[in-house]
Amino acid sequence: MTPRQRPDDARQRALRLDAADGLARFRELFVHGDEGRIYLDGNSLGRLPEATRERLRRAVDEEWGRELIASWGRGWFDAPLRTGERLAPLVGAAPGQVAFSDSTTVNLYKLAGAALQASGERRRVVTDAMNFPSDIYTLHSVARTVGAGASVHVVPGDGVQPDMARLLAAIDEDTALVVLSHVTFKSGYLHDARAVTARAREVGAWVLWDLSHSVGVVPIELDAWGAALAVGCSYKYLNGGPGAPAFLYVRRELQERLRSPVEGWFGRARPFGFDLDFQPAQGVQRFLVGTPPVLSLLAVEVGLEPLLEAGVAGVRAKSEALTAFLIERFDARLAPLGLRLGTPRDPARRGSHVSVLHPDGYRVARALLGAGVVPDFREPDAIRLGLAPLYTRFLDVYEAVERLARVVEEGAYLRYDGTRAAVT
Amino acid sequence: MTPRQRPDDARQRALRLDAADGLARFRELFVHGDEGRIYLDGNSLGRLPEATRERLRRAVDEEWGRELIASWGRGWFDAPLRTGERLAPLVGAAPGQVAFSDSTTVNLYKLAGAALQASGERRRVVTDAMNFPSDIYTLHSVARTVGAGASVHVVPGDGVQPDMARLLAAIDEDTALVVLSHVTFKSGYLHDARAVTARAREVGAWVLWDLSHSVGVVPIELDAWGAALAVGCSYKYLNGGPGAPAFLYVRRELQERLRSPVEGWFGRARPFGFDLDFQPAQGVQRFLVGTPPVLSLLAVEVGLEPLLEAGVAGVRAKSEALTAFLIERFDARLAPLGLRLGTPRDPARRGSHVSVLHPDGYRVARALLGAGVVPDFREPDAIRLGLAPLYTRFLDVYEAVERLARVVEEGAYLRYDGTRAAVT
Repeated sequence: MTPRQRPDDARQRALRLDAADGLARFRELFVHGDEGRIYLDGNSLGRLPEATRERLRRAVDEEWGRELIASWGRGWFDAPLRTGERLAPLVGAAPGQVAFSDSTTVNLYKLAGAALQASGERRRVVTDAMNFPSDIYTLHSVARTVGAGASVHVVPGDGVQPDMARLLAAIDEDTALVVLSHVTFKSGYLHDARAVTARAREVGAWVLWDLSHSVGVVPIELDAWGAALAVGCSYKYLNGGPGAPAFLYVRRELQERLRSPVEGWFGRARPFGFDLDFQPAQGVQRFLVGTPPVLSLLAVEVGLEPLLEAGVAGVRAKSEALTAFLIERFDARLAPLGLRLGTPRDPARRGSHVSVLHPDGYRVARALLGAGVVPDFREPDAIRLGLAPLYTRFLDVYEAVERLARVVEEGAYLRYDGTRAAVT
Repeated sequence: MTPRQRPDDARQRALRLDAADGLARFRELFVHGDEGRIYLDGNSLGRLPEATRERLRRAVDEEWGRELIASWGRGWFDAPLRTGERLAPLVGAAPGQVAFSDSTTVNLYKLAGAALQASGERRRVVTDAMNFPSDIYTLHSVARTVGAGASVHVVPGDGVQPDMARLLAAIDEDTALVVLSHVTFKSGYLHDARAVTARAREVGAWVLWDLSHSVGVVPIELDAWGAALAVGCSYKYLNGGPGAPAFLYVRRELQERLRSPVEGWFGRARPFGFDLDFQPAQGVQRFLVGTPPVLSLLAVEVGLEPLLEAGVAGVRAKSEALTAFLIERFDARLAPLGLRLGTPRDPARRGSHVSVLHPDGYRVARALLGAGVVPDFREPDAIRLGLAPLYTRFLDVYEAVERLARVVEEGAYLRYDGTRAAVT
């Protein structure tokens, strides 16, 4: 396929790819109340699974409305660990190492804080500038408050990928902890987690992976990599709903060595014993803190099911095909218009979202939304297109690129206001 | 009324009190799917408001299912501060000081940690043994991790009320922070918050109130008391739903002096600016951390409305009448059977739940549940009866005491297993 092919050829190919898609039937497990719009933001907020509606109705009307407090003993109290076990295969974790709790940020604080308090003389935290900025804020706050002189070393990148030579060189004998986003939020760069973790282990450093942009769409092998810790959110490819509770992973052999800086009753051996002394629970439970937001957590649990049924291998294969098709269409239609690709071309280094860059990207993104395609925008110039293999079609990708090309070609974006809204 | 009156006299009086109850109409704003059961656990999990069902249906089907990511800019992003402003009158706070975020425990960690990091040479935290044990766990974890040599001083109590002379004496020039439950979780003791706060201010100490068991049922005047900080949950008398997000209060003049130990993007001035440096937001927003669990938070917002309409003064008046009636019935029916009252008799020192003590309380509580009354149980011997003025009737109180008397009189509780379940 070359740019010289007629547009219809690419459209026909998208239709053929959709017809041959082994995951096509999963699309019907999700609500498409926005018929007509092409939703390419499942990497930010995953679609509503049909089953979630009924699960929440039951949780509200029956469990809260009728059974009330008794529901704590009939599935609510166990939900953080039970949902963690359900997620475990998606992150390559044997049982007893994953739990749902708090937000990604709070979990990062707890685990990075625990690690720094257990790492002796080592006082260095290494991350890269492509990590989610909030993670970097949190690492600074950990260093300032519980880090006992720790410093945060941020390795620069070129905006698309990190400088791997510098990153690996920065991981040294003084390094307590390496904290990276498995897939970076803006460019969609996919770290070679096995190699980075192995390098860190060679010098005795622990690695904490933020899996927010990879979980549910990229194969993850925390146990096999030798990762120490991980955190992640559940509202993207896990389809858990807006602000759904986050998860954490603590490698089994570290669990008894680490204590969360933030301790509360849900992390205690017998939460309802109400003794005045705190004894951390055995296992990963000790990293729980307070009462979890049950409704949001039950939505996560049911939202995982389509992914578990589809299997990550098939999801990853379709994701690679979708991003490859998008980049092909980028080359055909968008590169000639002056847009730049903000995502690695090597499929092995790519997650499931693709950023296309335009100097006036905010207005272009707004115009694209006006044309019925939902992207998101990341400062200063990235139009981010997320491809969720359970419900994104190749035809969606084809159409989205065509519409994006048109709003740029026709200058439609110039009619939009570039003033940033509070939420973009 | 004396114990010699015929039981029917008390029952008739309960019916007359219900008939004269100005809040009676609020009962119909809640779901009573458990018709036939008497629910006296609204101090642990408040009933489901009817309006919440529709609000959650709309949040799920329309906002998540149809509008998807656009909903962040149409009410989700602002929900933590907006819901805080809605709550503010219930805690006596002028605007700009209350926000919803995280769990009560995490908020306690953030605020107590921030206070200890800003309190110079003062290194003492004072609390009492009647505080919720999890709060004491958290204070120890704060002292251990961000307290820079802080110690936690726990003033003993007799199980019903704290030793106020010792408590006030313990608040000295070395005290950074006093942390107390406004209403204690087991005995329902209501602190004289104005007096305690005034005493602390005399010696230059800050006070942090845990309002979990008082908010929505007891008048609270944080601004007027001179309180520095407060936290609380929303799933009890606020009817926010299981594990609903908690709130925090930071006195306006302290906001710029304090920094949360746990910093993340929702506490940053422009969360979506994605710069690498963290600048805390102005005002109470800086104490937000990560993405909030939206579904649970929207349930809180709508759940507040009946309380705001009823007004705390009327709610408190009915609460005092309910607890007084319960204690009167306790004297008539339960004291003769050997049960003891675990709650202060002075109405000015009492919240809205009453504990009755029995040496075999766990089995008695289970038998009471078998008799259609829902209490909860707190180790080692407290059967806790929560009276939620928006939906608890005087007749419920009468009936509950009668049934409790019968299960003890007839020895029905002896048929129950005393082995503690994981959740009680």
